Amino acid sequence: MKAMVYHGAGDIRFEEKPKPQIIDPTDAVIRITKTTICGTDLGIWKGKNPEIETVAREKTGEWNGRILGHEGVGVVEAVGDAVKNVKVGDKVIISCVSKCCSCDNCKQQLYSHCRNGGWILGYMIDGTQAEFVRTPYADNSLIKLPENVDEEVALLLSDALPTSHEIGVQYGDVSPGDTVFIAGAGPVGMGALLTSQLYSPATIIVCDMDDNRLKMAKAMGATHTINPASGDVAKQVFDIVGADGVDVAIEAVGVPATWDMCQNIVKAGGNLAVVGVHGTSVDFKLEKLWIKNLKISTGLVNTNTTEMLLKAISSSPVDYTQMLTHHFKFSELEKAYDVFKHAAETGAMKVVLTAE
Amino acid sequence: MKAMVYHGAGDIRFEEKPKPQIIDPTDAVIRITKTTICGTDLGIWKGKNPEIETVAREKTGEWNGRILGHEGVGVVEAVGDAVKNVKVGDKVIISCVSKCCSCDNCKQQLYSHCRNGGWILGYMIDGTQAEFVRTPYADNSLIKLPENVDEEVALLLSDALPTSHEIGVQYGDVSPGDTVFIAGAGPVGMGALLTSQLYSPATIIVCDMDDNRLKMAKAMGATHTINPASGDVAKQVFDIVGADGVDVAIEAVGVPATWDMCQNIVKAGGNLAVVGVHGTSVDFKLEKLWIKNLKISTGLVNTNTTEMLLKAISSSPVDYTQMLTHHFKFSELEKAYDVFKHAAETGAMKVVLTAE
Amino acid sequence: MKAMVYHGAGDIRFEEKPKPQIIDPTDAVIRITKTTICGTDLGIWKGKNPEIETVAREKTGEWNGRILGHEGVGVVEAVGDAVKNVKVGDKVIISCVSKCCSCDNCKQQLYSHCRNGGWILGYMIDGTQAEFVRTPYADNSLIKLPENVDEEVALLLSDALPTSHEIGVQYGDVSPGDTVFIAGAGPVGMGALLTSQLYSPATIIVCDMDDNRLKMAKAMGATHTINPASGDVAKQVFDIVGADGVDVAIEAVGVPATWDMCQNIVKAGGNLAVVGVHGTSVDFKLEKLWIKNLKISTGLVNTNTTEMLLKAISSSPVDYTQMLTHHFKFSELEKAYDVFKHAAETGAMKVVLTAE
Amino acid sequence: MKAMVYHGAGDIRFEEKPKPQIIDPTDAVIRITKTTICGTDLGIWKGKNPEIETVAREKTGEWNGRILGHEGVGVVEAVGDAVKNVKVGDKVIISCVSKCCSCDNCKQQLYSHCRNGGWILGYMIDGTQAEFVRTPYADNSLIKLPENVDEEVALLLSDALPTSHEIGVQYGDVSPGDTVFIAGAGPVGMGALLTSQLYSPATIIVCDMDDNRLKMAKAMGATHTINPASGDVAKQVFDIVGADGVDVAIEAVGVPATWDMCQNIVKAGGNLAVVGVHGTSVDFKLEKLWIKNLKISTGLVNTNTTEMLLKAISSSPVDYTQMLTHHFKFSELEKAYDVFKHAAETGAMKVVLTAE
Repeated sequence: MKAMVYHGAGDIRFEEKPKPQIIDPTDAVIRITKTTICGTDLGIWKGKNPEIETVAREKTGEWNGRILGHEGVGVVEAVGDAVKNVKVGDKVIISCVSKCCSCDNCKQQLYSHCRNGGWILGYMIDGTQAEFVRTPYADNSLIKLPENVDEEVALLLSDALPTSHEIGVQYGDVSPGDTVFIAGAGPVGMGALLTSQLYSPATIIVCDMDDNRLKMAKAMGATHTINPASGDVAKQVFDIVGADGVDVAIEAVGVPATWDMCQNIVKAGGNLAVVGVHGTSVDFKLEKLWIKNLKISTGLVNTNTTEMLLKAISSSPVDYTQMLTHHFKFSELEKAYDVFKHAAETGAMKVVLTAE
Repeated sequence: MKAMVYHGAGDIRFEEKPKPQIIDPTDAVIRITKTTICGTDLGIWKGKNPEIETVAREKTGEWNGRILGHEGVGVVEAVGDAVKNVKVGDKVIISCVSKCCSCDNCKQQLYSHCRNGGWILGYMIDGTQAEFVRTPYADNSLIKLPENVDEEVALLLSDALPTSHEIGVQYGDVSPGDTVFIAGAGPVGMGALLTSQLYSPATIIVCDMDDNRLKMAKAMGATHTINPASGDVAKQVFDIVGADGVDVAIEAVGVPATWDMCQNIVKAGGNLAVVGVHGTSVDFKLEKLWIKNLKISTGLVNTNTTEMLLKAISSSPVDYTQMLTHHFKFSELEKAYDVFKHAAETGAMKVVLTAE
Repeated sequence: MKAMVYHGAGDIRFEEKPKPQIIDPTDAVIRITKTTICGTDLGIWKGKNPEIETVAREKTGEWNGRILGHEGVGVVEAVGDAVKNVKVGDKVIISCVSKCCSCDNCKQQLYSHCRNGGWILGYMIDGTQAEFVRTPYADNSLIKLPENVDEEVALLLSDALPTSHEIGVQYGDVSPGDTVFIAGAGPVGMGALLTSQLYSPATIIVCDMDDNRLKMAKAMGATHTINPASGDVAKQVFDIVGADGVDVAIEAVGVPATWDMCQNIVKAGGNLAVVGVHGTSVDFKLEKLWIKNLKISTGLVNTNTTEMLLKAISSSPVDYTQMLTHHFKFSELEKAYDVFKHAAETGAMKVVLTAE
Repeated sequence: MKAMVYHGAGDIRFEEKPKPQIIDPTDAVIRITKTTICGTDLGIWKGKNPEIETVAREKTGEWNGRILGHEGVGVVEAVGDAVKNVKVGDKVIISCVSKCCSCDNCKQQLYSHCRNGGWILGYMIDGTQAEFVRTPYADNSLIKLPENVDEEVALLLSDALPTSHEIGVQYGDVSPGDTVFIAGAGPVGMGALLTSQLYSPATIIVCDMDDNRLKMAKAMGATHTINPASGDVAKQVFDIVGADGVDVAIEAVGVPATWDMCQNIVKAGGNLAVVGVHGTSVDFKLEKLWIKNLKISTGLVNTNTTEMLLKAISSSPVDYTQMLTHHFKFSELEKAYDVFKHAAETGAMKVVLTAE
């Protein structure tokens, strides 16, 4: 089969790989019908995760590359002996987090830190940017796709929407009437914009340096947008919501500048939810914030709201397909990477790859 | 001034009364610009609350009738010495619950059971169906009305919407993707229908015997409606949501039949929120329900979400004015009572009385 | 092997049965070292659960009796291919609830209503009153027993303590400083008495008709006890906590009289947690309680706090062994049933059966 | 009357001041029977709060010094016209936070950020280190002292225990069986040690550089203590609780070093509660922590659990008087400051000043 394979920093190849087989009795093999690319995949490509090769060599003594991708929708092709909830032929969403549901962390619904799984697809085991993928703990990690849900919207439920919903909107406790600030209008920020609307905030301010993305944000429900190029972000936020600041700030980029924006504009008693993947430490102004009764959260998605989102989205007036800006055949995966990589020029948000 | 006064069972009179004055330093006097009638007012008229007269006689040794009404919007006419948050001329919503904020119950936000207040307006003290009303604990019990909120929608925030939101939707914990059943399409059931949408349930089934109200419910966001006349309610609910039943059942009538509907159709792990005012005990099928991990709640409104609703409604796509079916001048109060009393024929949901 | 087998109403036999084998890859077989008897076992004996035979005949066309028991501590004897978290030789607590962790209910931690398990041990499949037992979903349903925990206290973690903790104390939201009323001083009521102390209530009133049990309750931490024979229960409760009633009432018997006690004495804003297994419906005084902002809960144990209790008990100053009133060899199982059945005379709370 | 008065950095004087009078109808005047000194008072003395003088001059155009102190127990001497819940002669605890209960923040129980009060005693208005004090919003800010509570333990309820309980233990969500790390064994750390025991954690590790304080911590319930002088703190913590770290870390000092300890040892899914008053920003290792699903909180006490603590402490087996290490007559206030200031040598934790 064909797959997109990471071989080392700066080296990914769309090449032939053997079709995966059931290994453990809790496995399934899925024929991918739709997949997509995540910012994390670009990070791996750039060389941010050398542990992929190191761990592979430690465990097996060899290294043949790693198939990328942790998002996908497909059809169950085969199941192991212990699999009960899905069967061959079922159409499913593949969750980006594999969960055993038996370890201490899973028992607390902290599936992101599953001792036997977690985020491993397209990272510690072969992923979904392939014609077929082996998914561990199939009973726990695959979600049956109902007929009435658009297959492409469902693709957003592998990672983008649960991540922004759980780590941004739920940890941030967005509530009716709230004022919300979202730093960053990439797929995670946009996901936060969309899923925060499930809780009816009064004001949603989206901040990004790309005016095209801000325009998209407006179309997707932002009440206000701010481009930092236009002047002091905090001042603009205070002009909109008052000098106390916002109820909820969602950091969806992963750099010190956006952290800083958020800590500057969250009100006393408010929440600051960090969803961004950060590469360096940040300056936390405790001398000003110790007194502010803040809740600051971080985290990797637990995918414990995927089913909730599936149900909520099915009946939502919001058009989630706006997230899906570009469509390709699976065989055009290299082209899709190119478009996604140059999002500033191409206007790409999420790209959809469809099996032929 | 003119006011609607209860003199005893079956005896209410639209008559001349002295204009109220500040008594305590925490009081305000409000000039009413809009008021409305509640089902509870009809109950008092019918004689369900003889304690009104009894308590009055016990306290003061006399009985000159009680001005009805606990809902209203108006303008601050006078304030006591201890009032700081509102001032003469402010436009305000009058909360149906007067709260001292200092007693043990208030300190737990159980304002409905305030030791020094609670629901007393139009009950233990003179109410809002008058040209002026004295409101105790003005700082806590009046909500400033922003310019951008429709004064008639604001009228719904005195009682109807907070009651249905807090005791129905919040106690019932309506969440994104949920299936919700609402027994009764009167003002409280309709309020639950409207405010549950703040949390994006996937399915809202409204049940009532009045087809006109069911039609209104559809227009206000119900995904399904059921008229019990059309056959077994439980069976119809299971046909819609599956045999497990609904996530949340909201009882908004106050009779054994609607309690029974709700206990029959709530799923394991679900919630049953009783908002109806009940006059008799009900049969609780614990032999079937002990095992179902239910949460059943009851209650009187705390009005602790009035401000939240004010903010959320201001930015809501839902049209709350649909609740306001009939409009009268204040001098037509008797006529308004007549229309509201015969809701089945007149199609009245909430009636609006406007000061001339 | 020897086992206690239910053959029909009034007919249980301590007899020879074949040793269980692994059937599913997620199974384990456990050699029982300690087991005990639950009130539910007595109910089955009395004939309350004819569905045991009915379902068995429907599924397999035959009926050879059912081994009783859903509580036990033991040593892993064998594991299926898919079992990862426990291994042969591990000492484990057997949870009374078998949970797949993959179904919709399990994903919401509503393990009591697991679509593939739930309470099935000693009910729908053979149980723990045997030398060996097959436990489904071994990874999820067995808890490793640390060295520092007394094996007999651990036995209480199969069912008695998690049930009283989750359905009584947690659903009842017992908090520091609270006043708590517990109706019934059987194993579940006593479990609620012990585990409520994890949250430091100020007052715990235990009510039972057996003075011996009330004496035990005092020794285990009750601040007050009431024997209904001594007069009106509600009056006595109000004398202790004031006329508002208690913050939390825990119903731990399962009859209308104890339900009634509880609904009469819970304060506005309080909680009423039903833990008892009820056989008939009860009269719910909604005409008085609709206004009281109560939370009433029911439920079967989810066993989601077993590990929490294991950790908390290990460091608790409270002596949990007081629950274990009688000790027998496994071969004395019939005698143990006799003692447990006549608890009023024997003073039995929980009996311990130890393998020889 | 005599009072301890701040006149500027390094300049506090025990001097004669006029007895305070009722100003607003919601005021009370309290005759102080017990008071104490807080670390914050030392901070003011050192000159950390020059805003005290600045604001006073802005508001009134003059500056006669500020009476220090925000903790105290006393007897109501006079009340304003609007005061209903306390009366002359009542024995009361004075809460360090004055709350109007009517502003937007108060309505969300964020009393620490009351628009009309908050922490103002001994800061923006004259405080409790005096023979008499005027307390604003008396109905909300005074707590009646029951007969059965020790007056000196009650003194801890003005600030020390609510602060550590709310901002440390509750924000940190200490739960049964948890592992807890407390950085700092001063009054706030010790308060966290004492009040965390209300929730039955399994392990409480207290870290401080003062061996005397660690010895006190052991006596008050710490299961382990660590002196950073003895080697790497994180390593010692992991040796006790395992390499995942602790469930809850409570920062109770207010310097970068203790923040750093805490962020290094909190486990995935854990909580880090900052109670310390910080003077500089800290380095937040988001590059390691973004993935850990942490909840980090900050805050000033809301005093919304004072009554809860009053009830819980009354029935607690823990001896709270251990916190009260030194006793003085009120006239010895200067000596008490000296002892408290040199806590390392004197072993002072909380000092008690008693009116003669």
